[in-house]
Amino acid sequence: MSLLHPQRLFPADPTTRAITQSLYDGIKHLPIVSPHGHTDPRWFADNQAFTDPTSLLIQPDHYVFRMLCSQGIRLEDLGIKTRDGAAIASDPRRIWQILASHWTLFRGTPSRMWLDHVFAEVFGIDEVLSPATANAIYEHIDAQLHTPAFLPRALLERFNIEVIATTESPIDGMEHHLKLAADPWQINAHGRKRVITAYRPDPVVDPEFDGFVANLKKFGDITAEDTFSWRGYLQAHRIQRAHFKQLGATSTDHGHPSARTADLADADIEQLFALVSSGKADAASAELFRAQMLTEMAKMSIDDGLVMQIHPGSWRNHSKPMLARFGRDKGFDIPRGTEYTAALKPLLDKLGMDPRLSIILFTLDETSYSRELAPLAGVYPSLKLGPAWWFFDAPEGMRRFRELTTETAGFANTVGFNDDTRAFLSIPARHDVARRVDCAYLARLVAEHRITEPEAHELAHDLTYRLAKRAYQL
Amino acid sequence: MSLLHPQRLFPADPTTRAITQSLYDGIKHLPIVSPHGHTDPRWFADNQAFTDPTSLLIQPDHYVFRMLCSQGIRLEDLGIKTRDGAAIASDPRRIWQILASHWTLFRGTPSRMWLDHVFAEVFGIDEVLSPATANAIYEHIDAQLHTPAFLPRALLERFNIEVIATTESPIDGMEHHLKLAADPWQINAHGRKRVITAYRPDPVVDPEFDGFVANLKKFGDITAEDTFSWRGYLQAHRIQRAHFKQLGATSTDHGHPSARTADLADADIEQLFALVSSGKADAASAELFRAQMLTEMAKMSIDDGLVMQIHPGSWRNHSKPMLARFGRDKGFDIPRGTEYTAALKPLLDKLGMDPRLSIILFTLDETSYSRELAPLAGVYPSLKLGPAWWFFDAPEGMRRFRELTTETAGFANTVGFNDDTRAFLSIPARHDVARRVDCAYLARLVAEHRITEPEAHELAHDLTYRLAKRAYQL
Amino acid sequence: MSLLHPQRLFPADPTTRAITQSLYDGIKHLPIVSPHGHTDPRWFADNQAFTDPTSLLIQPDHYVFRMLCSQGIRLEDLGIKTRDGAAIASDPRRIWQILASHWTLFRGTPSRMWLDHVFAEVFGIDEVLSPATANAIYEHIDAQLHTPAFLPRALLERFNIEVIATTESPIDGMEHHLKLAADPWQINAHGRKRVITAYRPDPVVDPEFDGFVANLKKFGDITAEDTFSWRGYLQAHRIQRAHFKQLGATSTDHGHPSARTADLADADIEQLFALVSSGKADAASAELFRAQMLTEMAKMSIDDGLVMQIHPGSWRNHSKPMLARFGRDKGFDIPRGTEYTAALKPLLDKLGMDPRLSIILFTLDETSYSRELAPLAGVYPSLKLGPAWWFFDAPEGMRRFRELTTETAGFANTVGFNDDTRAFLSIPARHDVARRVDCAYLARLVAEHRITEPEAHELAHDLTYRLAKRAYQL
Repeated sequence: MSLLHPQRLFPADPTTRAITQSLYDGIKHLPIVSPHGHTDPRWFADNQAFTDPTSLLIQPDHYVFRMLCSQGIRLEDLGIKTRDGAAIASDPRRIWQILASHWTLFRGTPSRMWLDHVFAEVFGIDEVLSPATANAIYEHIDAQLHTPAFLPRALLERFNIEVIATTESPIDGMEHHLKLAADPWQINAHGRKRVITAYRPDPVVDPEFDGFVANLKKFGDITAEDTFSWRGYLQAHRIQRAHFKQLGATSTDHGHPSARTADLADADIEQLFALVSSGKADAASAELFRAQMLTEMAKMSIDDGLVMQIHPGSWRNHSKPMLARFGRDKGFDIPRGTEYTAALKPLLDKLGMDPRLSIILFTLDETSYSRELAPLAGVYPSLKLGPAWWFFDAPEGMRRFRELTTETAGFANTVGFNDDTRAFLSIPARHDVARRVDCAYLARLVAEHRITEPEAHELAHDLTYRLAKRAYQL
Repeated sequence: MSLLHPQRLFPADPTTRAITQSLYDGIKHLPIVSPHGHTDPRWFADNQAFTDPTSLLIQPDHYVFRMLCSQGIRLEDLGIKTRDGAAIASDPRRIWQILASHWTLFRGTPSRMWLDHVFAEVFGIDEVLSPATANAIYEHIDAQLHTPAFLPRALLERFNIEVIATTESPIDGMEHHLKLAADPWQINAHGRKRVITAYRPDPVVDPEFDGFVANLKKFGDITAEDTFSWRGYLQAHRIQRAHFKQLGATSTDHGHPSARTADLADADIEQLFALVSSGKADAASAELFRAQMLTEMAKMSIDDGLVMQIHPGSWRNHSKPMLARFGRDKGFDIPRGTEYTAALKPLLDKLGMDPRLSIILFTLDETSYSRELAPLAGVYPSLKLGPAWWFFDAPEGMRRFRELTTETAGFANTVGFNDDTRAFLSIPARHDVARRVDCAYLARLVAEHRITEPEAHELAHDLTYRLAKRAYQL
Repeated sequence: MSLLHPQRLFPADPTTRAITQSLYDGIKHLPIVSPHGHTDPRWFADNQAFTDPTSLLIQPDHYVFRMLCSQGIRLEDLGIKTRDGAAIASDPRRIWQILASHWTLFRGTPSRMWLDHVFAEVFGIDEVLSPATANAIYEHIDAQLHTPAFLPRALLERFNIEVIATTESPIDGMEHHLKLAADPWQINAHGRKRVITAYRPDPVVDPEFDGFVANLKKFGDITAEDTFSWRGYLQAHRIQRAHFKQLGATSTDHGHPSARTADLADADIEQLFALVSSGKADAASAELFRAQMLTEMAKMSIDDGLVMQIHPGSWRNHSKPMLARFGRDKGFDIPRGTEYTAALKPLLDKLGMDPRLSIILFTLDETSYSRELAPLAGVYPSLKLGPAWWFFDAPEGMRRFRELTTETAGFANTVGFNDDTRAFLSIPARHDVARRVDCAYLARLVAEHRITEPEAHELAHDLTYRLAKRAYQL
């Protein structure tokens, strides 16, 4: 039996399924555009072989280890490093067995679909992972990883990835992107960059970020600006945005707890910045500063053309003891209700009608799709809707996104798919799921005579390729 | 190819589709009951020809121009008047071309369905709007508009509209309704009024409404009451409600930002009214006054039998610069989260069990359907649920309404369909969509053996005709 | 015509229907595990015949009488007792006729499905209830109720209920459970208890509960502890939890207005308890005390192994006049928006990673499924998701539960079905609906090649039987 049915995610009704197949056949070979994600630029700069299956497929994937954790597996036993260097499991084969022993947990989840796709399509495996097959599958993957066809650049080309964005902060070292800039491989046959960066300034914008004041200092050192003065701080952003643009960036990204924006008077901003940069901001001042900074970033976007992405609504590192033991990004980010209509008004009142501004909105609160986001994006020329994000980057979540936004915002106010992942090998799987789900949605509209089949073919192409290229200016 | 497939909006599954067809055949020819909308009573009073396609189909339709605006078309270029009289586009044919050039934006939206229905059914067009067909379609419509068969009364009869309600405020001139009252056409073959009004007192109830104090003055002039005393103000409402009733009104309508109600002591109300009528109310006092006025309106409804409609949850005129430039109602009304359980309690504790009271609740926050509205309407005899409203007046929105409310509130606590539109020509299209979606929903219940087919036929008739007549006392 | 179609609730699409049938055939005969409900333990202890159809099927069922109330039937006319002893309808046959006359109201609701199932499967009726059939159906049921086959124990065995939990508070008399404990019938063929209790301490935990201070006093009398000291109060809980455990309890249940938890310092708790136990707590203190008590209960659960159930989000007894006239639990409990991410953090930070703790979360706010509950249960080992609850215990509600939680939390972080009812005769109906809806959901996953059919069979068994046994430690 094959792990992947050729008609997976297609509706059961024969009429709708046939239309889905036809739409999918028309777009399945289109190149992948990956405008937002978290792969490591080192992979593409150095093109070294990946180490082993466990460190490639389990340890960096919080979807995988959070599910195991929910059923009582300790992160230590999965080889997740602790902050204090306490002893953890280190045998990758043993950790792989843990995954295999709990594989049934993933039934019905996207992790299962993505990993089965990786097993089948990347590594040519056709057996279900289980305690009995785990060793053979591990050895099979491990052996392939050390062959030239599985080096990062070879995979990127085989995956037909036209362009991929990584995410860096203005205080990150950019050595990998600089190395790429000097490498002929970086320019594809069409004369365009293959691997680009995106400007994510949270560490120097969010006063509640770990080490914020030290980050400001580093930001000043890198840019040779006085980042403890408001004017110098803004100038440092301009310098780094320009630098990121040279390294291919077409977008910025802002991962705030809320979508709040502000439009303060100059004197008030300077006073707020003085407080914030002293490290003494309370929660309300921190929130206000982040809010003002979205407006400042929008002003700079009008000047330099970078597209803004706003990714609000996650309570990061929700578990205090797990944060203390393992650090950030260990699967304990939990969404909260997120308001947009009032939150975005200050920014929109100031800049929302400017034809040079482009903001892509994301949400972890699906109730905002039809109530706030589609009505906003359906009228403000500066706003577009990002795709179903994070926990919702899965068939039912993607379907809800279309059903809840299309009637008010149409398709042209959406931006195609983001894979948003650090799991490089899963990128084709994720884009394939999105393509199948979008084709199934369009096929239903055709089967119910709400659009015609030729319209659906055009839309499938838009959703797969053209909208992402246009929205991200790629 | 025809623009309208006879089985549009029917499910693809053959069994369910056949049941849908049978249900739809049973109700498709029923008269239209339109108990809530915003057509211009002048049309029916004067029966003059409509001017041209653009001023009829584009400029008054905020669904249409908000989508164009979202993709960067300036409202000036669509001939939308500015408040300062700045020059705007004035050639209706050119504006029609803009719509045609952006017609693909509307794929998957209700505007596309409604306009295709208008083109096909009202004007006999069978070509898709496009830059190439735009001129011919324009001229075809324009010519027909100037023939007797396309005068407002002829269309109303051709549309099989049994009764239609417009909406007026107590300070609006009622000359068109008065003219109708003296016109034999106004009474149909069954001895009932064709065009009725509805009492929407927001301009004299909402202290934050433009010109509220001047409105109060005008309210006093019209009713010869001292509307700056609480007693006179209430009496003025009673007078105008009685006057509206004479002009056919069976309902009132309340478009507040929230669903909040209050039940203040008399002395507190008088003090609040003194503040409010002085024009000095702050936001909290304004909200409290609106809240108290819902309870006052409910008391009057118990006396005079008018059905109350509560339409909360829209942040009207969200964009400050667009409000300044173009005025109200330009597609920039954005929904917000809306709470009902606590908000309605004061009114319900006082009057909610009174068998003479009938309140129809609407929402722009779909999360309230299953969480608050269906549980409330499923027990309080005074409460009914209005249909899917505004952005949700579309196939997916209507389907969600039924799926989220029926299991708790049943069908009998809903009130049929409202077209809620000023786009007169789209009324048959909108009712037809609602009928098709309701039949498809009922057909699924039949196909899954949750109700029988004879029950579904009765319910289809209820949802199309009987519930609206009963709920609005028509 | 039969009242029950054998394929009711199966999807119409033939492929999906066939898979649903196969899955359902595999699990339909599994025993019922009912770990959470509100049947009267007296029924099983005394095994006396039920009195009559009306007092069995109408008067205790708030789903039934709330729908009748919503359409203007007075509760007095249904024989619902008033607090002041005012005269009410007393002829059960006449009340039964009222239900029959309004039977069409229930179309599309779960009450209709449940009662049709009771009529058909429990009493062998094959005619639809109507004014014409009402008398015959009444007499038929009434006669059967007085035969041995319809005594409570006979029905429990015929229903194939392996174990059923009732709910008691620590100040309830436990005489029925004690009587059962001494009765050989209580132990089934597998050596396990048939009827168990669950520990619901709301009357002594919620300072806003009717008679809270008197309840504390009674709590002290029963346990011989000083329940007006913090230490004695906690000890009284420990004593009663142990007592409940002896009577079979494996769980506690907490019906708070919100999900808020707290982790106060000892001195602050004692001060708060002093205020609360004096009967002088304001709303904020009452909320804080309930919040702290969830954490205290969690600590005790770690010690004694009882599984916690948290059931928040209902505004109990919403109508003040109806509460005054008829008392609690008369269908006027209305849900509110409920937050979990922030609310649970204090408890989770303290105890959420402890492998000995197990908390089952319920909600009346479906927006929390995908936004908060699935992400929380998908990572915290102490958290599981209870099934669709109360108003959502119906086909569409159950389907939404699976669609909104599975992709993030999988199946293993859910706990099977709860019937949650005092309507004993409807228990097989409710479990059967859940089994059908779960099989239909799994069949869609199979038909779309998202899981295999053998996987679906295993999952159907899990959802029907194994997960409930494991989660409730039965």
